[in-house]
Amino acid sequence: MPSSPCEKEEWGAKAWDFLCNLRSGSPLIQCITNFVSMDLMANTLLAAGASPAMIHALEEIPDFTPHVHGLCINIGTLTPQWLPSMKAAAIEASRSAKPWVLDPVAVSASPFRLQACNELVDLKPTVIRGNASEILALSNGFSGPNKGVDSNHSSMDAVEAAKSLAQTKGTIVAVSGAIDIITNGTQVVGVHNGVPMMQRITATGCAVTALISAFIASNVEHPFEATASALAVFGVAGELGMSKANGPSSLRNHLIDSLHVLDRSTFLSHVRISDL
Amino acid sequence: MPSSPCEKEEWGAKAWDFLCNLRSGSPLIQCITNFVSMDLMANTLLAAGASPAMIHALEEIPDFTPHVHGLCINIGTLTPQWLPSMKAAAIEASRSAKPWVLDPVAVSASPFRLQACNELVDLKPTVIRGNASEILALSNGFSGPNKGVDSNHSSMDAVEAAKSLAQTKGTIVAVSGAIDIITNGTQVVGVHNGVPMMQRITATGCAVTALISAFIASNVEHPFEATASALAVFGVAGELGMSKANGPSSLRNHLIDSLHVLDRSTFLSHVRISDL
Amino acid sequence: MPSSPCEKEEWGAKAWDFLCNLRSGSPLIQCITNFVSMDLMANTLLAAGASPAMIHALEEIPDFTPHVHGLCINIGTLTPQWLPSMKAAAIEASRSAKPWVLDPVAVSASPFRLQACNELVDLKPTVIRGNASEILALSNGFSGPNKGVDSNHSSMDAVEAAKSLAQTKGTIVAVSGAIDIITNGTQVVGVHNGVPMMQRITATGCAVTALISAFIASNVEHPFEATASALAVFGVAGELGMSKANGPSSLRNHLIDSLHVLDRSTFLSHVRISDL
Repeated sequence: MPSSPCEKEEWGAKAWDFLCNLRSGSPLIQCITNFVSMDLMANTLLAAGASPAMIHALEEIPDFTPHVHGLCINIGTLTPQWLPSMKAAAIEASRSAKPWVLDPVAVSASPFRLQACNELVDLKPTVIRGNASEILALSNGFSGPNKGVDSNHSSMDAVEAAKSLAQTKGTIVAVSGAIDIITNGTQVVGVHNGVPMMQRITATGCAVTALISAFIASNVEHPFEATASALAVFGVAGELGMSKANGPSSLRNHLIDSLHVLDRSTFLSHVRISDL
Repeated sequence: MPSSPCEKEEWGAKAWDFLCNLRSGSPLIQCITNFVSMDLMANTLLAAGASPAMIHALEEIPDFTPHVHGLCINIGTLTPQWLPSMKAAAIEASRSAKPWVLDPVAVSASPFRLQACNELVDLKPTVIRGNASEILALSNGFSGPNKGVDSNHSSMDAVEAAKSLAQTKGTIVAVSGAIDIITNGTQVVGVHNGVPMMQRITATGCAVTALISAFIASNVEHPFEATASALAVFGVAGELGMSKANGPSSLRNHLIDSLHVLDRSTFLSHVRISDL
Repeated sequence: MPSSPCEKEEWGAKAWDFLCNLRSGSPLIQCITNFVSMDLMANTLLAAGASPAMIHALEEIPDFTPHVHGLCINIGTLTPQWLPSMKAAAIEASRSAKPWVLDPVAVSASPFRLQACNELVDLKPTVIRGNASEILALSNGFSGPNKGVDSNHSSMDAVEAAKSLAQTKGTIVAVSGAIDIITNGTQVVGVHNGVPMMQRITATGCAVTALISAFIASNVEHPFEATASALAVFGVAGELGMSKANGPSSLRNHLIDSLHVLDRSTFLSHVRISDL
């Protein structure tokens, strides 16, 4: 097993540097995502310092995708008409060595969705980010009735499934939950940031997937650490937002504001990343 | 005429119990809705305690819809490509005895829209929720120039049209307005909650339709009372939000926050439901 | 060169009168726009006093578009399936002498997008509103890699391109930026309102395009002045919002609230429109 490039005590500083790289580089992130999440995803990317582009026409991908710095694919409101664009963009990203992230929203809702996800996974995403139920379903090939887009499982239930998926597919897997789990198949890291009320805001999972895209696009040599860092930054923004919130809608606003104004000392005093 | 199962003075307590059932059951609500409303609709459902799923691919409906607890269909940005999914989901919901709600947005904007609505109405929605102009158009079969998605009529103008529509189609009809009207064709109930500025926020009508879906899914034996209760809860959340708002955007946020944190005594001191 | 119908010192009062006309007339504005912007665009129109209708089915345009007061076409998430509706609505608007605005989002992202834009420009929009990179690309016929939806250029870089485009196509051209530029090919006016953080909120450009639609629909005899006025009103709302904001998400909320409650004296003390 390779030794971690980040010592445990250095995680916070590393994550902050990765955010600084994002802010200074302002990466162009193409998002092919569901209708529900577009607004929050774009605003999350903008607040973090990235430049989002929601462009999904199949006709444009050969011209546009080679120029982006990262790609985010999310199957939330998938229809057969959108899948070819997702695949073409994934292929183009891989061809031009651009990192990309797959968000397998509600993958177990139907065989149609599971098959689409499997086809996308075969195109070798840099990172797969889902909740525990989604990662379990994707790892086990299970498709059947579940709770729609929300998870029935704890992220800790999905550690082995995540490792197995990462090993089998040669990808990084991130499992969102009370503790976010990030693994490359050998290393496993936990992010202990965030607040439960974030699950009462639609598309926060989609938004953090987009943020991962921007982090790995800005730190291409360190996708594993950048993924953990993105989850930590988003979680810390949620904690800071929660301190001012009166409910999920004000939390959403304060989270985005906090992400935008986040400074080093505040981040370092909140970040909690650890090897598991 | 059947006697009302709720005495007038008991409406508030009944509505609160219905909300408690929603919160404890966390029903899975499938929404096939317009692009404008998806964010607010999902956040309204989440704030109330439900689990929204915006899944509309025709391929998924046979697998997914049988597992939901309720369905919300909204024709706001209808195209011919979406109509088959709406119909398939409505048929599947009816077959598995799941309650569903139809929101006939801007039904009089075109013959295309009126015909689509009539086809959906024939699939026997549990509830139809619209503004006065929409209910009048749907009841009278009228299609012609109107004010787009906003109403030209008072809800009180549409009482007879709502009763007639409810009787003819065997459904519950809810008419949003300064006073919300709910009828099953014999009983007529009025909800006197809400504030005018809610009409200056897009998709509040769509959001309350989704909330009705969650209420009737959580209280399947009492769809008529659950519909009135949903309108009252949303209206009270609007009143509470208005007390903190400086305009429509802050009202939207405070409304969602208020819906999430709403407690029994606050609700009971604001709710105003009465037989008409 | 015709003399300006507005003396420099009268711009503020004129712009306020145009907003009053919008508020009293509540124009019905059809929007065929991208998925990201629908929520903010509808809420901007509602806050200003207009009535938005997001209706884009090709089947409905012959019935619906003749009854609207203005039309807004935005190609942000364009696919080939949407283009026929955009064209049909533009033709219908022109036929019934209704003003319409084109927002050529990310026009240089691909030849597909540039060609679609050129076809729409040939249908004679009353106003074209874009950022500097978009107006330069549209004026010069340039298509190639750029920064997605964000501008690489200052609005002042695009003055000559804007004038040339306005002259060639017989339209008004507005270039958003630190200084908004409005030209009809001969006159050039600058609007010095707004704050930089508005660029960190997705769809603010789309929203101001929609606001222009409502302003020109409410002041059909003065499309040039109405366009400048819309940009000034939106910019002033941004400045007022910024005074209360802690980041982009609260700015978005305060901007919309400020637009809704804007009064004459506050507006007149902030508006900065000048001939260039």
